[in-house]
Amino acid sequence: MLIGIAGGSGAGKTTIAQQVTEDVADVRVLPLDNYYRDRSALPPEERARINYDHPDAFDWDLVRDHLDALESGDPIEMPQYDFEEHRRTDETVHVAPGSVVVIEGILALYDDEVRERLDLRLYVETDADVRVLRRIQRDVEERGRDLSGVIDQYLSTVKPMHEQFVRPTKRDAHLIIPEGANEKAVELLRNRIA
Amino acid sequence: MLIGIAGGSGAGKTTIAQQVTEDVADVRVLPLDNYYRDRSALPPEERARINYDHPDAFDWDLVRDHLDALESGDPIEMPQYDFEEHRRTDETVHVAPGSVVVIEGILALYDDEVRERLDLRLYVETDADVRVLRRIQRDVEERGRDLSGVIDQYLSTVKPMHEQFVRPTKRDAHLIIPEGANEKAVELLRNRIA
Repeated sequence: MLIGIAGGSGAGKTTIAQQVTEDVADVRVLPLDNYYRDRSALPPEERARINYDHPDAFDWDLVRDHLDALESGDPIEMPQYDFEEHRRTDETVHVAPGSVVVIEGILALYDDEVRERLDLRLYVETDADVRVLRRIQRDVEERGRDLSGVIDQYLSTVKPMHEQFVRPTKRDAHLIIPEGANEKAVELLRNRIA
Repeated sequence: MLIGIAGGSGAGKTTIAQQVTEDVADVRVLPLDNYYRDRSALPPEERARINYDHPDAFDWDLVRDHLDALESGDPIEMPQYDFEEHRRTDETVHVAPGSVVVIEGILALYDDEVRERLDLRLYVETDADVRVLRRIQRDVEERGRDLSGVIDQYLSTVKPMHEQFVRPTKRDAHLIIPEGANEKAVELLRNRIA
């Protein structure tokens, strides 16, 4: 069973992914963030200007290949991404096939061919103000980034890309989960997935 | 099990109510439209000016009493409403208790005390243009009403009341079902409800 979980930055996608698959021992979660294109060929200043909220930032071919491999019962080597250097790291994570595979990320429902592969398409809908506050907490408090830089990035790319590419995928969801984790939705989905 | 299904006019609430309870032999569906306050005491011209899209148009005490009665295993006499005359008809419909009770209507998630009674709260989300076209089809083609009157009513009450009272209840839903009936959502809910 292949599940896609989309929604804006800070919507609570990872929490939902964990909660709805809690009863599945061999669940595999693929964060879409690991599938950013490798930009090591570009000069550093160009890499720093990449718009990570645009669909073109992702290596969709690799996503599809990996979903197909897991579906066929083959393991994958999931790439890891270094956000400081804007390149793939040299390490990969070995992921064995599992009975439930979750692809989770802002654009998990964006790509037509990925979407067709999904048995269940979920969109986590959370108010934009709650989302931006979570993002600030994560980026400023946990990652020690500069507040004004976080705000600039949010307004210049995160928000417009959300409105242009992320939010429209809500209509391709089978179900929309309001306001991050809600127990009843989680329980219902957990029963379906287990 | 008590289920509430809300959403704008023309969202497809009735279809969803039928589909998700298809496997339940003794389901009881209570359309909230049957619970408009009886206005027979008012003069006809005042009755004609009632805003049927405002929460005050509904007899919430009776809704709560009927939900409690069915919950306790007692039958109810569900009122019927005459939309031409703007009053309750003299007939009622006898509703025996059932294992699943659905309350379905634009404001099914509006009243705090009704909402607390609901085991599952669903909101059917459908684009406003699709909803208004369904409403026109129903009111003009099926009910023979005048198109300009339907449009006037939509703009003067249906739309503003939707935005003020109906749409905000989306955040009280456990799950949002996008774009009317979608098979996957229906299947998942049907399994939960049966």
